[in-house]
Amino acid sequence: MTDVRLAQLMTPCLILDEGRMTRNIERLAAHAARLGVPLRPHLKTAKSVDVARRVLADGTGPAMVSTLAEAEVFAAAGIRDITYGVGIGLNKLERVLDLHRAGCRLTVLVDSDVQARAVAAASTDAGIAIPALIEIDSDGHRSGLAPDDPEIIKIGEILHGGGAELAGVLCHAGQSYGAVGRAAQAEFAEAERAALVAAADALRANGLPCPVVSAGSTPTAHVAKDLTGVTELRAGVYVFFDLVMAGIDVCAVDDIALSVLTTVIGHQPARGSIMVDAGWMALSRDRGTAAQEVDQGYGLVCDETGRPIPDLIVTQTSQEHGTIALRPGSGASMPDLPIGTRLRILPNHACATAAQHTSYHVLPAEGGPLMEWPRFGGW
Amino acid sequence: MTDVRLAQLMTPCLILDEGRMTRNIERLAAHAARLGVPLRPHLKTAKSVDVARRVLADGTGPAMVSTLAEAEVFAAAGIRDITYGVGIGLNKLERVLDLHRAGCRLTVLVDSDVQARAVAAASTDAGIAIPALIEIDSDGHRSGLAPDDPEIIKIGEILHGGGAELAGVLCHAGQSYGAVGRAAQAEFAEAERAALVAAADALRANGLPCPVVSAGSTPTAHVAKDLTGVTELRAGVYVFFDLVMAGIDVCAVDDIALSVLTTVIGHQPARGSIMVDAGWMALSRDRGTAAQEVDQGYGLVCDETGRPIPDLIVTQTSQEHGTIALRPGSGASMPDLPIGTRLRILPNHACATAAQHTSYHVLPAEGGPLMEWPRFGGW
Repeated sequence: MTDVRLAQLMTPCLILDEGRMTRNIERLAAHAARLGVPLRPHLKTAKSVDVARRVLADGTGPAMVSTLAEAEVFAAAGIRDITYGVGIGLNKLERVLDLHRAGCRLTVLVDSDVQARAVAAASTDAGIAIPALIEIDSDGHRSGLAPDDPEIIKIGEILHGGGAELAGVLCHAGQSYGAVGRAAQAEFAEAERAALVAAADALRANGLPCPVVSAGSTPTAHVAKDLTGVTELRAGVYVFFDLVMAGIDVCAVDDIALSVLTTVIGHQPARGSIMVDAGWMALSRDRGTAAQEVDQGYGLVCDETGRPIPDLIVTQTSQEHGTIALRPGSGASMPDLPIGTRLRILPNHACATAAQHTSYHVLPAEGGPLMEWPRFGGW
Repeated sequence: MTDVRLAQLMTPCLILDEGRMTRNIERLAAHAARLGVPLRPHLKTAKSVDVARRVLADGTGPAMVSTLAEAEVFAAAGIRDITYGVGIGLNKLERVLDLHRAGCRLTVLVDSDVQARAVAAASTDAGIAIPALIEIDSDGHRSGLAPDDPEIIKIGEILHGGGAELAGVLCHAGQSYGAVGRAAQAEFAEAERAALVAAADALRANGLPCPVVSAGSTPTAHVAKDLTGVTELRAGVYVFFDLVMAGIDVCAVDDIALSVLTTVIGHQPARGSIMVDAGWMALSRDRGTAAQEVDQGYGLVCDETGRPIPDLIVTQTSQEHGTIALRPGSGASMPDLPIGTRLRILPNHACATAAQHTSYHVLPAEGGPLMEWPRFGGW
């Protein structure tokens, strides 16, 4: 029940199960291939060149990022086709141009005429036509324009006529993270597709180009059955998966490739709790399962080999303390976990938990010694 | 209304107001001096050698840390008296000994006979008497032994007779973070003191030494009036303060020295919301004010100079998107914040927000150019 390879690691630290990761990558790649739509993996979860090399069929892209720091690291590693998935800030255009000068085709996102004019002006001034996608909103999640908003045409004209490259439209059905089960997720997938196709049709009807029609979130990408009119599919957290995704049935708990290794440091028998050396600094403050049917606290506890211990969760965290106890209402009995026992905690939200660490300790799919893959952060 | 020094910074980034920080440091230092009890500042919030130099009256200590990584960095910077405030893991004793060998007196924390025996054995084997404090629990917060638990004597005997150094007792009234107002906090401070004194008396009555009686949390440290029997006072987040501390009246909002600089990247007028480029990656997922009388969302929004904008908070976050809107039920009107506007967001929890960044951009108290102070993380 112990893994001698883990015994050498200082706790807390981040463990990546390469076999599970590979299975997750292959599952969505096969689904996208069946649909006939190229996949643009989002690298914001991984923030790792080693993971990127395994996710991207061709090491040069396409890829998606959430910060210019990611774009810069991945461009330096040879990725040449990147979409930056946050509405472009007016203060970031010089770095966008620098990426183009370095040979990376970086596409930006806009949902306002102010941004479009700034992108067009920067393009004209630099003599580099920055590719820009217009963000479409299908579910009121955060940013983007409704598919029938006349601003879409106005923005398209500013980009197309102003020296930038009108690359097309993009939509992210972020509300699908709250949709439980394939049927509910399929509705979000279809809403995402329909919103995009409507916006693309409106652009084309106004004589504007719209080569890219980009859809996706991890839930909608996995259930999509008909992507007529969509030219690329995006997803990110699927590479590792997490308890939030398991809680809405996008994956099984056994698909989760990421965990935090921790050590038991104390017991509070009167309160039925165990202390471990992984607090929110190692697990993150993310409580994404709090609103789900099964609240996993700050994470589901597994033994050292990664097998879940029934009903045992992290109920409370301080900065460097985790409190482990049985789920409220559980009929299970508390296992004997002496001081010094190593445990692994599955994360609520892989993006947030991974962000608390500077490297992955990788359990190779083929066995053998652990590998260490660096992660990066920043903006 | 703009600060030209901030215009050069890429957003999001972390801003530290040195003048406010100095005022916070001086306030608690003066209070501790009046009480006649030395202060042992907790450096886990700051994780910065530059901040440590300003917090510690004498650059060599005493100090408190939450990880051995902090102890190692601060020891290398000349701090010679450090208490590691998380129950010692059996896998960490070799690093503890290495710190002693490097000239740093590192004190560890135990609340079990298993840990005590391991500390004693490591001390004997290395010929270095590791100083250890017994953790006392006054409020059921997380770890530690009840002050009348006979285990305290047993642990004291194992340490004292086994080659380690029985340094004394320590208590942290963590539940005081939920106590609103000075009167409620004073009850926690007195409970913390009484628990410690009872445990210290029990050790001494059994012929065991108890030179150190260490009390503190930021709320209890600020309200303590009588610390009879206590030999040192600890606090950490007071150096920066945050909205959680303001929400329980330990500080004013104007005392908060830390903020995240962000830029407006979009508007959703139909939903009354504004998008900024600070999501949970820059702000953290901490929702510490959620259970308080005033829920500050993911943070209170200020203009670029740090002045709060009435009722404007971060209502929602994605990884790199923040959604700003008026507090639910607010009668205030939405200010005009064009795309490109810079804002500053006060954190719920300074420890968690600071942990998302690798440096502080410091507004010097005396004016003049910004300074950049590095932060570190890890374990």
